[in-house]
Amino acid sequence: MTAPVILRAPVLLDGSRLNRRVTVSPHMCGGSSSIFAQLGDWTWETVSAACGTNVYDARTADGLPAYLSFYYFHVRGSTETHPHGLTFGDELSVTSRVFDFGGESVLTLHRLTRADAAPEALDPVEFYERPRADSLYVQNFNRWISRGRPDSNEALVRSSPPDFRHDHLPVLPERYSPRAIASRARKNASFHPDGIPGYVVGEELTCDYDLDVVHDFNGVGLLYFASYFSIIDTALLRLWRELGRGDREFLARRILDHKLGYFGNADFGARLSIGVRLWRRAGVPGDEIADVTVREARSGRLLAVSAIHLLREQA
Amino acid sequence: MTAPVILRAPVLLDGSRLNRRVTVSPHMCGGSSSIFAQLGDWTWETVSAACGTNVYDARTADGLPAYLSFYYFHVRGSTETHPHGLTFGDELSVTSRVFDFGGESVLTLHRLTRADAAPEALDPVEFYERPRADSLYVQNFNRWISRGRPDSNEALVRSSPPDFRHDHLPVLPERYSPRAIASRARKNASFHPDGIPGYVVGEELTCDYDLDVVHDFNGVGLLYFASYFSIIDTALLRLWRELGRGDREFLARRILDHKLGYFGNADFGARLSIGVRLWRRAGVPGDEIADVTVREARSGRLLAVSAIHLLREQA
Repeated sequence: MTAPVILRAPVLLDGSRLNRRVTVSPHMCGGSSSIFAQLGDWTWETVSAACGTNVYDARTADGLPAYLSFYYFHVRGSTETHPHGLTFGDELSVTSRVFDFGGESVLTLHRLTRADAAPEALDPVEFYERPRADSLYVQNFNRWISRGRPDSNEALVRSSPPDFRHDHLPVLPERYSPRAIASRARKNASFHPDGIPGYVVGEELTCDYDLDVVHDFNGVGLLYFASYFSIIDTALLRLWRELGRGDREFLARRILDHKLGYFGNADFGARLSIGVRLWRRAGVPGDEIADVTVREARSGRLLAVSAIHLLREQA
Repeated sequence: MTAPVILRAPVLLDGSRLNRRVTVSPHMCGGSSSIFAQLGDWTWETVSAACGTNVYDARTADGLPAYLSFYYFHVRGSTETHPHGLTFGDELSVTSRVFDFGGESVLTLHRLTRADAAPEALDPVEFYERPRADSLYVQNFNRWISRGRPDSNEALVRSSPPDFRHDHLPVLPERYSPRAIASRARKNASFHPDGIPGYVVGEELTCDYDLDVVHDFNGVGLLYFASYFSIIDTALLRLWRELGRGDREFLARRILDHKLGYFGNADFGARLSIGVRLWRRAGVPGDEIADVTVREARSGRLLAVSAIHLLREQA
């Protein structure tokens, strides 16, 4: 007969770390990109609290709106704990930590653990080298940008709000920096330009996607970072159906690793061209990696690159 | 140089009222149904806190999952404050209050006000008869349901968790009860079966909509209540475009009033048939009411009825 303890505020543990206890709500889960949208909000909230900047309402020195845009998003799950495996009512402990990347960028790590697990410090070594099977890890690398032209989402330029404090943040060991990974993916239009050891190329599909005014834009008219996840999922689902696979199996897929680099934005009415290449692990049915490119169809401009390591549920 | 105060917990003012200070985040706004999803989460959180039930993980006396499903959703806005007018960075004060409707239903009111407005008690008279132009009001009428068959979303039956406490809640004056409004809308398949005084029938459109596995289902595989908003918006946008109106004008529409009754759910793979009839206010260009029905195409089963009073931005 006791009410659940849900009226909780996140706790700032020190100048770079935040902890929250979370009851997963319908808005955070489901088939769509809600969990990624929620993770993005936690990143903005953590950076706001740690860096003295109101990320939701930031301005450049010239008074123009500045956005802490997503440049690289990396999710690490396990067969036990993965982003589409959350359902409402799940109790989580979320630890978030912000790392210094200078005045124009910032990196945030999140660890989501079932709430009955003992809370521990979040060390980057754990995230990158010793992930726990009961935890979901997320790395967000964000850059400050503003619109180069007020009426366009195509010409975005780097810029930073003057009150953004970062010198006090811990520094991530150089070997964990996502800069090289993201810029190689951008240059090669793939996270796996040279193939994937142990995997063989399977099916491919290229399809068009018309940006959806109802779903895909955020509150300031930019193509929403979380929509890139659902746009890619829409293309992956088309390939899935072409292979004769069912919708329930799509929703039950387990995401072990998901990398997404954001290299461009787009305007209302744009048509995208999405390429999906499915790699299959030799000798391990159901272990697949989807290698995805998102381009503006008209110009061929690269908007995003993604690699999704998934396990199909065997029927 | 001061960090924004965003690490806030909602405050339970007494056994039926909750107040929260909110910085609107990207996940709460945008063109999609995010604001409605957020409002729904606030309803569940408020009912959980007020009624001693973990709404996110509720069970019937038989141990089956029980869902506090949305039956009637009513939004009241103004030209100044409306659901698509929120953008991230907006600071809101949200007051929520729960009212007794017996053991199987519950009614929740929310008032969203710019945070610099003085907080005041939330009286139903204000909500129904004296709404303030600087506030957005939302009424949610919810019913406890569970699945009649484990593998289907079609046969949902009423049922309530045994720990749901409601006797201590205030009672809403009978004249404000939404029961009659919702059941008439269900019976007539319209909130306006006899026409709308001062308005004349304009364009109509009927279109199909295939339920979208990527966007439309919640974490337990039910068609998500907030998706009904975006599904209806998708149909309204088609009519909008047939009338030669642009996407930016669609996103800039102001919603003065939005009623939505939920009378059925649907399964993966279902095709819907959506009817939209646009009423135009005589002599007042841009003042329109969209009268909408959502049916399962195969069976004709009524899933939802909506009425949206909107103002177009005059170019």
